Amino acid sequence: MAEWSKNRERLREIIFEAETPEGRRFDVILFCCIGLSVLAVMLESVKSINQRWGDVLHAVEWGFTAIFTLEYVVRLWTSHKPLRYARSFFGVVDLLSVLPSFIGLFFPGGHALMVVRVLRLLRVFRVLKMARHIAGADVLMGALYSSRAKITVFFTAVLTITLIAGTMMYMIEGSHVVDGEIKGYTSIPVGVYWAIVTVTTLGFGDITPITPLGQILTSLLVLTGYAILAVPTGIVTAEMIGASAGNPTSEACPSCGVHGHLPDASYCRRCGSSLD
Amino acid sequence: MAEWSKNRERLREIIFEAETPEGRRFDVILFCCIGLSVLAVMLESVKSINQRWGDVLHAVEWGFTAIFTLEYVVRLWTSHKPLRYARSFFGVVDLLSVLPSFIGLFFPGGHALMVVRVLRLLRVFRVLKMARHIAGADVLMGALYSSRAKITVFFTAVLTITLIAGTMMYMIEGSHVVDGEIKGYTSIPVGVYWAIVTVTTLGFGDITPITPLGQILTSLLVLTGYAILAVPTGIVTAEMIGASAGNPTSEACPSCGVHGHLPDASYCRRCGSSLD
Amino acid sequence: MAEWSKNRERLREIIFEAETPEGRRFDVILFCCIGLSVLAVMLESVKSINQRWGDVLHAVEWGFTAIFTLEYVVRLWTSHKPLRYARSFFGVVDLLSVLPSFIGLFFPGGHALMVVRVLRLLRVFRVLKMARHIAGADVLMGALYSSRAKITVFFTAVLTITLIAGTMMYMIEGSHVVDGEIKGYTSIPVGVYWAIVTVTTLGFGDITPITPLGQILTSLLVLTGYAILAVPTGIVTAEMIGASAGNPTSEACPSCGVHGHLPDASYCRRCGSSLD
Amino acid sequence: MAEWSKNRERLREIIFEAETPEGRRFDVILFCCIGLSVLAVMLESVKSINQRWGDVLHAVEWGFTAIFTLEYVVRLWTSHKPLRYARSFFGVVDLLSVLPSFIGLFFPGGHALMVVRVLRLLRVFRVLKMARHIAGADVLMGALYSSRAKITVFFTAVLTITLIAGTMMYMIEGSHVVDGEIKGYTSIPVGVYWAIVTVTTLGFGDITPITPLGQILTSLLVLTGYAILAVPTGIVTAEMIGASAGNPTSEACPSCGVHGHLPDASYCRRCGSSLD
Repeated sequence: MAEWSKNRERLREIIFEAETPEGRRFDVILFCCIGLSVLAVMLESVKSINQRWGDVLHAVEWGFTAIFTLEYVVRLWTSHKPLRYARSFFGVVDLLSVLPSFIGLFFPGGHALMVVRVLRLLRVFRVLKMARHIAGADVLMGALYSSRAKITVFFTAVLTITLIAGTMMYMIEGSHVVDGEIKGYTSIPVGVYWAIVTVTTLGFGDITPITPLGQILTSLLVLTGYAILAVPTGIVTAEMIGASAGNPTSEACPSCGVHGHLPDASYCRRCGSSLD
Repeated sequence: MAEWSKNRERLREIIFEAETPEGRRFDVILFCCIGLSVLAVMLESVKSINQRWGDVLHAVEWGFTAIFTLEYVVRLWTSHKPLRYARSFFGVVDLLSVLPSFIGLFFPGGHALMVVRVLRLLRVFRVLKMARHIAGADVLMGALYSSRAKITVFFTAVLTITLIAGTMMYMIEGSHVVDGEIKGYTSIPVGVYWAIVTVTTLGFGDITPITPLGQILTSLLVLTGYAILAVPTGIVTAEMIGASAGNPTSEACPSCGVHGHLPDASYCRRCGSSLD
Repeated sequence: MAEWSKNRERLREIIFEAETPEGRRFDVILFCCIGLSVLAVMLESVKSINQRWGDVLHAVEWGFTAIFTLEYVVRLWTSHKPLRYARSFFGVVDLLSVLPSFIGLFFPGGHALMVVRVLRLLRVFRVLKMARHIAGADVLMGALYSSRAKITVFFTAVLTITLIAGTMMYMIEGSHVVDGEIKGYTSIPVGVYWAIVTVTTLGFGDITPITPLGQILTSLLVLTGYAILAVPTGIVTAEMIGASAGNPTSEACPSCGVHGHLPDASYCRRCGSSLD
Repeated sequence: MAEWSKNRERLREIIFEAETPEGRRFDVILFCCIGLSVLAVMLESVKSINQRWGDVLHAVEWGFTAIFTLEYVVRLWTSHKPLRYARSFFGVVDLLSVLPSFIGLFFPGGHALMVVRVLRLLRVFRVLKMARHIAGADVLMGALYSSRAKITVFFTAVLTITLIAGTMMYMIEGSHVVDGEIKGYTSIPVGVYWAIVTVTTLGFGDITPITPLGQILTSLLVLTGYAILAVPTGIVTAEMIGASAGNPTSEACPSCGVHGHLPDASYCRRCGSSLD
């Protein structure tokens, strides 16, 4: 029984940690499985491929579902706090990545096709399982998180501008009929959608101004937008420089108290006394 | 009478300040009202929704107008300097957000439809009432404001480039007829509009070069434009880093109270007294 | 005769310098003249406006030509080194801004229409006269100039990538016929044009990939391009931060020699002695 | 025989080094040859030019092939370690830039036309020979290389977002038939391609959302994308500033020779001796 518990502990280490060689190997294999299973879901949606290789993709799909189900069960079993794991972000993602295939079994034939189809596509979210294996993601998330107040202000400003610009375009340009189809700024929501597409310099070109006044407003919008869009870059850059510049300055000289030494400094640059 | 004045003072605090719990609750409620009323204006412009829910939207509209009118009157009444409030930015916005609905009453039926329609759309500007509730907006505005000289230079440079590029495209490409419609660079203003759309990398695609020379000029324009468009980002980023690096220590001088000393300062840069 | 020379000196000061109130007033008037004359050239190119207001625009044009001719002659006459002025950048621009109108006189009627038309459009370059009046432009030009080596490397890299990507798209996609017209990647130069439009995220949409392989290459190109396009921003930002960080630190404390004081410092932050 | 060896050594210096005046002249000539030969390949692909100047381009092509073959042979012969050169990046590029022309000789007439055509286009890769002559490229590559971990995280995040957004658009919008052609989001891979085009603000406009829900998702995608795309700029900028801020003073410690001291350092941070 002790051996049983020991095996379980070893399994837990392999699955949850990436320290041991086996753990790293397990991570790599799982990483590949996720990639291949998402690729299979993508290819299944291509009609010509699905008609020819549908059976193979179906088999592959069930193979990966079996692997991920096994992984989920073992994770639940080996985890020290199974409930906590089950309710964690990755626990939910792990469950969601196998559930659609099983639920699909209960809607056979042409029955409730839409539900099944949507469910099957949810399997794409398996890609989120990858997040577990990416080092450094938390640093970037941290930089974004600590500037969330500024980013909120920025987005509110952008939405206000696009709301006003979209309404003005709806007033100025309105809609017009081309080849029997109603085109242009048919409503304020459409105008706001167009303004967002414009202010971010996306510029699909599905809706474009045709009056001189509309073209002047567009020019102003994209130029203003450009000056404003420099702001998130400024925010993130300042945050990142602050994060990396904050490190070397932390310790102070024990004799004179000056801080802000370079990381490799052995002697205080002010009083010349040793830094350790 | 003293109680009356006291009530008025309490109302003023709730409406104008966000310090008290009631003030904060008032802010949140008003914030929601603004959002919902703007949403109503937007939905009203969608034909299919307006045909079906027009009556409901009309009622909702008058409900919000009543709320905002009440708000405006109470603000005027409780303010210590009513005239100053009425002429301030937010005072004008508050008035503008209720005026259109009332003016609309005097243009019944099909009479002067265009005026009414434009007036009704002005209600979208209610979104500006939100600006009052966004903390941190002034920091960003300050960063933009303090780089206004550089931003002006930048915009002048962009306008000069687009003016010259637009004129050259008008010379090189000119207009051509496609399916009975005149397309392309029909005049210099259109050329300048195209150049702005190109230099900001918006790229609608409603006007595109078709001659080899035009395509070469486009390539040069967008590449030059890209190098130049790095400038506003550089300006804003440098400003933001400068802002955060300019006051590295929040602690103030004990004798004169100046703050914003460099991290390694031992003496106040203003009065020369020791900082510890 | 001394008075004559004095008047000439005073005129020179008004025209060439912006220190005196008269000099500043002269600058503002000239600035407006340039703006209006460029606007007139732009409006002249709009057919409907030209048909109706052609005569007015013609008269306005000759008025501005007279003003700019007078300005050029007076500049030549009052300048201490007329030849040096005539060969300077602004001297050439000043000459070019009046020459087209006069040359146009020698090509009357329908004779050599194209030459005249192009000449007339050259008047748009009058906008370059404005550069004289923009303060701070040299700071930005300096930042761009001092990073010219890095910018050259960047542009070479972009051109190499677009050349290779354009050739690959020509191989992969080639051209196809739609409604009797040849579309797509008809030659390598067209492919390179498309690659520049793509890598800068301009995205006109006049040429788009239609094969899966082409769409994969496009995705790679725009993602790679995006990472690379962060480089000019990084270059300019680093340059600007370096430029602005250099300023406050320039003067050193006269007693202890520490430099890098904040711009408003009156006392040395290190030794506490007065800074002047 | 000693003279023979001496000549060889002198040739090697001219070809491999850019120190001597002859070496520099050789570099410039080669640089021009590369540019012209790539231009010839590009022009050959333009039908109208090829029909008229095909023979000239063919002759030019063989001229450049002869020059580059001679260069390759001399490089091999003069190099101290011929095998190492042959297997180096530039050795392979040098070989690839002449091989296609020779292989083309073995596929005469209409035989295996496709292979020949692709081979001939490979000659465009000659442009990579230019990389040898660009100074400073390694600095930029270094900045990109040292942030490769963060860039990987960034690209993984972008791919995850585009995968999920593309799948959702495939669910929401799907495909629709316009003029007998199937358009829109026909499969998940197409959806992902569209999401990449959108999130990078490229915006071709070949596929655009037509349902309100799709337009809302597009707006969210491009706004989220914009905030995220500020990240690579932040990474590169922080890296560049870090690189230039790391050695703020170029002067070295007089006793131990360490350089890169902070601007206000009075004592060497390594050995503790005075810096003046």
